[in-house]
Amino acid sequence: MITKSQKQLIKSLRHKKYRELNGLFVIEGLKCVQEAIKNDLPLTQIFCTDKFFDYFKKQTELTVFISEKEMEQISFLTHFSGALALCRLSDSLPIPISGEPKHWNLVLDEISDPGNLGSILRLADWFALPTLWISKNTVDVYNPKVIQSSMGSFSRVRVFYTDLDKVLSQTHLPIWGASLEGDNIYHQSFPESGWLIMGNESRGISPGLQRYISKRVSIPRFHPKSTVESLNVAMATSVFLSELRRCIFTR
Amino acid sequence: MITKSQKQLIKSLRHKKYRELNGLFVIEGLKCVQEAIKNDLPLTQIFCTDKFFDYFKKQTELTVFISEKEMEQISFLTHFSGALALCRLSDSLPIPISGEPKHWNLVLDEISDPGNLGSILRLADWFALPTLWISKNTVDVYNPKVIQSSMGSFSRVRVFYTDLDKVLSQTHLPIWGASLEGDNIYHQSFPESGWLIMGNESRGISPGLQRYISKRVSIPRFHPKSTVESLNVAMATSVFLSELRRCIFTR
Repeated sequence: MITKSQKQLIKSLRHKKYRELNGLFVIEGLKCVQEAIKNDLPLTQIFCTDKFFDYFKKQTELTVFISEKEMEQISFLTHFSGALALCRLSDSLPIPISGEPKHWNLVLDEISDPGNLGSILRLADWFALPTLWISKNTVDVYNPKVIQSSMGSFSRVRVFYTDLDKVLSQTHLPIWGASLEGDNIYHQSFPESGWLIMGNESRGISPGLQRYISKRVSIPRFHPKSTVESLNVAMATSVFLSELRRCIFTR
Repeated sequence: MITKSQKQLIKSLRHKKYRELNGLFVIEGLKCVQEAIKNDLPLTQIFCTDKFFDYFKKQTELTVFISEKEMEQISFLTHFSGALALCRLSDSLPIPISGEPKHWNLVLDEISDPGNLGSILRLADWFALPTLWISKNTVDVYNPKVIQSSMGSFSRVRVFYTDLDKVLSQTHLPIWGASLEGDNIYHQSFPESGWLIMGNESRGISPGLQRYISKRVSIPRFHPKSTVESLNVAMATSVFLSELRRCIFTR
């Protein structure tokens, strides 16, 4: 059973303004809700249809039974899955890190597509880059589509929305930037630690951050006749992180 | 100006049945329509709003002016771009290839998400695997979302919907299959030619094709505590094709 005001609240959480106002965001889908529980995220309620009610009820008192029709009304998905949780926006996420972060750090500059950010979260999780540094004008990580496409990885990867200019101006580590005019990534030897910047889907890395880049790297195009302009940013991130890990791993 | 019956025709092309019945599919977006013209695809009409009418009118007599409102009515996109073309389904695509195909061939077994197929077309184009061999139960390549997310690559990559069992049972080349339990991809030496099979988003490669696989390969998970189950199939394809090309390229 779900009240009319709860329905209105959930629908409003599609928008960043209302997520911030209510301090809540939506996690949807069996896998995503399971991961949120496993990673101790501050859930406040889990709405379940018949399909998953018994399963989640055993795990937490927060579980509420709703009908298929009610789920259809609150779900953000075309094909709703039967489990939708509300989670508190965590105040502890955007704490400043003191000192220089070690290892490799992924930096996202103005990524605008929620699906791309979700995919990159999943990649960062897989390739063990546990912290993402993200420009303030990048799409909101609590956007339902980001949460959905990260497939649970949003609950393990730490995300800092920050002034990238400030962060990058203070580092002593090498800063690599993805660029169509960069050096061939397959000819590089990755240092043990550094920053890798991925830029906006159409415009690339913003001019303000270009000055901090110590090396530009690119994925060569192999098709001689191809006029394909670029790889999608999530696909390119996939190749760069794979190369980074292979290079350090097989050293 | 667009007639009521043209509108109905275009809307119907969302469905495979009507694409086949009319022998037409939709190409939408500036970039995709540009690529279709560049690659001599058999377009029958290009509908443009004010934004691109003059641009396309100079290139082809097929260009028709329509209002923003009319475009909104026929577009499959949330944010329509101002250019939508109709293209004939080509009979010449599914011809059987005689003899053994050379080099590396990508095989897709039951990929169900249109965005994934579109992304994989773009990857195949970038990494120079010009032919895709696809199971008949994989999502239709002429689905508007596939066309859209391939960003024009659909017009350069040849796609064969075929009986994979038949194709793979007759080959003498090595057949590699992506599998979570496979050998570490970074420890492999790719031969000069072969087949790489990518399986369904949740179920992986189907049991019927498993028996043809000569080597199972996987991308290692680097995060020791991560419970991320798998990479998205397009991200994984990105890593495998990158490794394939790096390996052959730097030999």
